[in-house]
Amino acid sequence: MNKASRLFWPTLVTPKNAVVKPTEQLSRSQKLLTELGLVKAGSNGTYQIMPIAQRTIDKCIQLVQRNMQAAGGQKISLPVLTPAQLWKKTGRLDGDISEFYMVRDRSGKQFLMSPTHEEAVTAMLASAAPISYRQLPQRLYQIGPKFRDELKSRFGLMRAKEFLMKDMYSFDVSLDAARQTYATVTAAYERFFRQLELPFVRVEAASGIMGGSQSHEYHFISPVGEDTLLQCSNCSYAGNTEVFGNEADAPSTCPSCQSAQLSRVRGVEVAHTFLLGDKYSKPLGATFLNTSGKPEPLVMGCFGIGITRVIAAALEVLSTEQQLRWPKLLAPYDVCVIGPKAGSKEQASAERIEHELLNQLAQICGAEQLLHDERKELTIGKRLLDAQRLGHPLTIVVGAKATQLEAPKLELHTSGSEKLELEVAEVLQLVTQHEQHKQQLLQSQLEETNSEQQQEQKRFGHVH
Amino acid sequence: MNKASRLFWPTLVTPKNAVVKPTEQLSRSQKLLTELGLVKAGSNGTYQIMPIAQRTIDKCIQLVQRNMQAAGGQKISLPVLTPAQLWKKTGRLDGDISEFYMVRDRSGKQFLMSPTHEEAVTAMLASAAPISYRQLPQRLYQIGPKFRDELKSRFGLMRAKEFLMKDMYSFDVSLDAARQTYATVTAAYERFFRQLELPFVRVEAASGIMGGSQSHEYHFISPVGEDTLLQCSNCSYAGNTEVFGNEADAPSTCPSCQSAQLSRVRGVEVAHTFLLGDKYSKPLGATFLNTSGKPEPLVMGCFGIGITRVIAAALEVLSTEQQLRWPKLLAPYDVCVIGPKAGSKEQASAERIEHELLNQLAQICGAEQLLHDERKELTIGKRLLDAQRLGHPLTIVVGAKATQLEAPKLELHTSGSEKLELEVAEVLQLVTQHEQHKQQLLQSQLEETNSEQQQEQKRFGHVH
Ligand SMILES: [Zn+2]
Ligand SMILES: [Zn+2]
Repeated sequence: MNKASRLFWPTLVTPKNAVVKPTEQLSRSQKLLTELGLVKAGSNGTYQIMPIAQRTIDKCIQLVQRNMQAAGGQKISLPVLTPAQLWKKTGRLDGDISEFYMVRDRSGKQFLMSPTHEEAVTAMLASAAPISYRQLPQRLYQIGPKFRDELKSRFGLMRAKEFLMKDMYSFDVSLDAARQTYATVTAAYERFFRQLELPFVRVEAASGIMGGSQSHEYHFISPVGEDTLLQCSNCSYAGNTEVFGNEADAPSTCPSCQSAQLSRVRGVEVAHTFLLGDKYSKPLGATFLNTSGKPEPLVMGCFGIGITRVIAAALEVLSTEQQLRWPKLLAPYDVCVIGPKAGSKEQASAERIEHELLNQLAQICGAEQLLHDERKELTIGKRLLDAQRLGHPLTIVVGAKATQLEAPKLELHTSGSEKLELEVAEVLQLVTQHEQHKQQLLQSQLEETNSEQQQEQKRFGHVH
Repeated sequence: MNKASRLFWPTLVTPKNAVVKPTEQLSRSQKLLTELGLVKAGSNGTYQIMPIAQRTIDKCIQLVQRNMQAAGGQKISLPVLTPAQLWKKTGRLDGDISEFYMVRDRSGKQFLMSPTHEEAVTAMLASAAPISYRQLPQRLYQIGPKFRDELKSRFGLMRAKEFLMKDMYSFDVSLDAARQTYATVTAAYERFFRQLELPFVRVEAASGIMGGSQSHEYHFISPVGEDTLLQCSNCSYAGNTEVFGNEADAPSTCPSCQSAQLSRVRGVEVAHTFLLGDKYSKPLGATFLNTSGKPEPLVMGCFGIGITRVIAAALEVLSTEQQLRWPKLLAPYDVCVIGPKAGSKEQASAERIEHELLNQLAQICGAEQLLHDERKELTIGKRLLDAQRLGHPLTIVVGAKATQLEAPKLELHTSGSEKLELEVAEVLQLVTQHEQHKQQLLQSQLEETNSEQQQEQKRFGHVH
């Protein structure tokens, strides 16, 4: 079980008037994250992740991984350092390179601290003997740090210079097959966002620097979003105004159905997918052997989810000015338990109830998902305030009313600041429901996945 | 379940005479890893990890994490980029800096691609208001890439320029308390190495560039090791000859008991621990408030395990010229199942047995731990050769003998190339034993941990 008194949680000692760097535009959730000591600003747009926030990152990584593996993904690791030479071959060093961190090794050879890995992964496939059409599709993903020396890093974790990404690269025999992969992987993306229970929109996007023939972005809707999105309420069209060059050039009627019911919302981009075609495989010579044994360029896609960005954006959408709120599957802890203050007259009897409660809760949600705030030197009120600011889905207070002889009651606080006075059995039932809801969110994915995998097996069945 | 035909495993198509870079000294296990397509050499001493090896890395990370959390560790993430300014303050840019990758951002500010994070973590603690003695000890760890521009990278993954490390930093109120932490964390290290079931030795080491008052290295014993170690068979002394400056200056009698029974072995360093004292906290101003409310420098330790290095070294110790061998807890898969060849006369009946077997195995070890080599276009012999080179702990062949009416038999191959002909029930029993052994390895840790945590709670009990 996690004990609050042992937690490294620098807010506990940070003075109230701690300085937030004035050059940095912080949204409300990013301000809260920083003030609460969950992340600390490092140097110039980098961030240090403290233990409570790290738990959320690890949960997010696990959830993304489940979905990537369900979509046929295999995990790999590519080095942070990519030879600049490879990027010269694809032409990506020809334009503005001021956002790239470039570094030379002791021999003078130049590398990028990779902002993305199309070149690296494609060169890796090119360096092996050509793969057979029988072994395609291949979908390779990794999770690791990426680097972008932004002119102006903003909104804290949301747009940091060093950030955590899941990037997947797919390889197919044809544009048709690549479209199938694109459909499978983007279905996994939508499942992931549904599991976060957040409103999101998929929009047509400019392919930009990646190139390729098709591209979509996934956005959470939020006023802090940097992008302006168009949504048609008459048809399914949704697009990023970037596609039209200047935002002012974006149309006022739907480019798809011509209706005038086109509204604008702000969005935070959390994922981006590209159908790349042979843009990278051709210059880098990554081929497969077709059914006649002849080499052909691999047809590629790439699929990115910003892990730290998803978390920052989710907090931005859900949180209030004063309290963080988390997607259920990403909350650092499911339940926080606050016991009696030391020296209170009910201390001994309340502690017995607390002890029994903790055992029962550990059975229901696992000891790892529990935070026991046993800082008994603090009042219940002070600890409850911390718990509410951290936004635990459920906070249980074992106070004076827990020890009354007639109808003893616990306090249950939800992250929505709802306060209920309940018997122990009722509290346990609500915690059980919370865990069941989490399981259902995970399960719904598995069921979809199984039927998808069966379909894929049928589709590729002929090659086995 | 994992299917061999879908695996991204570039060896399947790599020509037999693939070029190994002649500048690179590769040990036998590293040669095998490369030839088998489990890792691919990237540019100049970096490595790309392919899916099979990635499974081992993820298992190693999980195992290290369990042990770090059992030792009171809390996970954090520090940026790869550390401001060079911090390293100037601690004097670590005064000497030879040719091994550091240095990079400038768009404003000209200089950063290191961190080879280690003492400065970063200490500055982070210094930037918060001083922590109270009540909140100590704190033990913070992370797992991520580190960078060292070695003059000569060698032995593949064993000494790559970009490598994966678990690094923990500890903060205590006094040297005595820091020694307690040192004992707790090094006990977790020894537990980890015992779980790998590999012979290891802990030796006194030179503190070198890290500084501090005490330092130990953990080595696997291997002829490919770069270090020469002294071991006394009369007492418990063990040391690295580096401590004596030149290897030739190392004594021939034990520095501890003066006996002449001092032998030399070669070792591969896989972990390094340091009692740092205030070497970093003093120049960077990281203090805590003592019982009188006065600031005092934090007393630090640091503790590194090279994740990729542990794996490479374990393979080096265990493998043969022709076959990889893995620590049980780190093998990519527990069991590989090879079914009949397509078109063989027993195909249909053997496949029914195979199908049933796979279901039963999935119950015993979990579908994720199974590799089904269903490349039916290949002979059993060819697939068995692949399985033996990959070194699965257990490989089960469902061949012609599985379908004979009287006493049907499966073939079970262990990673030691032992071959047994067994009934299905016997095979399932051996797989069950294998899984039980794995569970015991994990469990032994938990029991030790619980009693240690209780001791620690007693020790620090007074501050709560
Ligand atoms: Zn429309
Ligand atoms: Zn001795």
